[in-house]
Amino acid sequence: MFAVTILGNNSALPMHDRHPTSQVLQMDESAFLIDCGEGTQTQMNRYKIRRSRIAHIFISHLHGDHYFGLPGLLNSYSLTNRAEDLHLYAPSQLEPILHQIFEVADTKLTYKLIFHPLENEGVIMDGKKITVECFKVKHRITCWGFLFREKEKPRKVDIEKAKEYKVPSSYFSHLKEGEDYRQPDGSIVSNLMVTKSAAPPRIYAYCADTKYDESLCQILKGANLIYHEATYLDEHEERAGLRFHSTAGQAANIAKLAGAKKLIIGHFSSKYNELQPFLDEASAIFSETDLALEGTTYLVR
Amino acid sequence: MFAVTILGNNSALPMHDRHPTSQVLQMDESAFLIDCGEGTQTQMNRYKIRRSRIAHIFISHLHGDHYFGLPGLLNSYSLTNRAEDLHLYAPSQLEPILHQIFEVADTKLTYKLIFHPLENEGVIMDGKKITVECFKVKHRITCWGFLFREKEKPRKVDIEKAKEYKVPSSYFSHLKEGEDYRQPDGSIVSNLMVTKSAAPPRIYAYCADTKYDESLCQILKGANLIYHEATYLDEHEERAGLRFHSTAGQAANIAKLAGAKKLIIGHFSSKYNELQPFLDEASAIFSETDLALEGTTYLVR
Repeated sequence: MFAVTILGNNSALPMHDRHPTSQVLQMDESAFLIDCGEGTQTQMNRYKIRRSRIAHIFISHLHGDHYFGLPGLLNSYSLTNRAEDLHLYAPSQLEPILHQIFEVADTKLTYKLIFHPLENEGVIMDGKKITVECFKVKHRITCWGFLFREKEKPRKVDIEKAKEYKVPSSYFSHLKEGEDYRQPDGSIVSNLMVTKSAAPPRIYAYCADTKYDESLCQILKGANLIYHEATYLDEHEERAGLRFHSTAGQAANIAKLAGAKKLIIGHFSSKYNELQPFLDEASAIFSETDLALEGTTYLVR
Repeated sequence: MFAVTILGNNSALPMHDRHPTSQVLQMDESAFLIDCGEGTQTQMNRYKIRRSRIAHIFISHLHGDHYFGLPGLLNSYSLTNRAEDLHLYAPSQLEPILHQIFEVADTKLTYKLIFHPLENEGVIMDGKKITVECFKVKHRITCWGFLFREKEKPRKVDIEKAKEYKVPSSYFSHLKEGEDYRQPDGSIVSNLMVTKSAAPPRIYAYCADTKYDESLCQILKGANLIYHEATYLDEHEERAGLRFHSTAGQAANIAKLAGAKKLIIGHFSSKYNELQPFLDEASAIFSETDLALEGTTYLVR
């Protein structure tokens, strides 16, 4: 299971029952929260997100529609007696704001909140199955995208070949760890002969809020799933540029140039009631596009 | 029209489709926002509150469930190009927090936000038709209640009497302003003889988060409508006290001792799914009790 669930797909002004940005990326039993607009908690309730699984939260930038739901979520974790560490990756200026908010409320969190200021591009989290890298995007204020990269998985046992070379199934766990097999007669069966490579590691790229920037494609190259903002339709391309946002067509262009497998678009401006035109414009350029719809889960594959 | 609409009636942890504290008090064309928990904007959309009418916002204290919706609301006013001044009455420590939030986002509000720090009990706003007083309640951190007091209305013309004394109807506007009438023969008709007193000024009292405190009754005396928190049922009276909250029965006792006309109770703990027991307990002590239900408007009368 490697998939992202959309909790909010609107830009700053909540309207049309759309909410500000937030997503939950799940990899097996772990979950990663990406941005946390106002109302994220309520959206988690609505879509039955198991918030206890989240141990890492990533905030792309300090426009309110990307983090105003965070203080409430951090409080709620405390009210429900969370004990596990919580890692927060965000621009450094968020730390003193949170500190002040907790101080004036006389709040002592029940868990350890570990703040990781985003400073340089590169790996910011190195987990068991996944690494997370941050990269800069072009927005009005400092803004970070995040690349969630699955780690290389161990080779799989090739059952046919293993039978052929008489490797007992009790030894398969050793094969998975890369070991060779020694037959009763002492001859060696090389690991490579009885295993096959696992599926290539998958990548989810979250591009946050950004103007059109082709230089991103180098970073996004070969991503399985890209989330790219599409605040405006193409007719408002000039406005998009001035406000450091993108259009649906521009988002699709990025996905196409990056050779992505699939694209989801979101952060729709409140001025648009209907979303179909976003899909139409993007799909014309990159057919594997979906709207990032709230409550919907998109597989990274 | 003098009435309060409930936007959020839950305590800190949003659950059961209940939201953290927020209310809108309307007097004719003016509206006053009282507390602003996370999601208040969305609740305003849901219940068709005309937010442009709000020129005064009152924040009782700095627990997040009473103000985490405020930064988003202030932003949204700016995104929709609000031009009118907005007055904010809140504990002084909120000002630097908001300042920092706007600074890191490089936000310049399109309107003037006038911050009024709550420091002493007494009148904090003196409007055309209403005055607002703040008073201290007993909570874990400094917390303020608010008393919205309608101003004395001008006396009404007693049409029968006016006819009897031959006051022409063209002079009625002068009577309303308290003037006497001079008859053609020079004799004076005293204003009091041809007018009657208007309905007595009405009072709405918002008691914020507080433990049971009978000394409040002096301030609340004769209020037409009291909102009092009822975080717990009576069986958790001890816990209520320890956490500086009240039970349903305690809220009802306050309303009874204060001689209020009506009571609404809210700030229900998330541990309770059903609210009927709150109403049952409070009504047994003070029959004129209602649950403060989200989306419902309660007249101050």
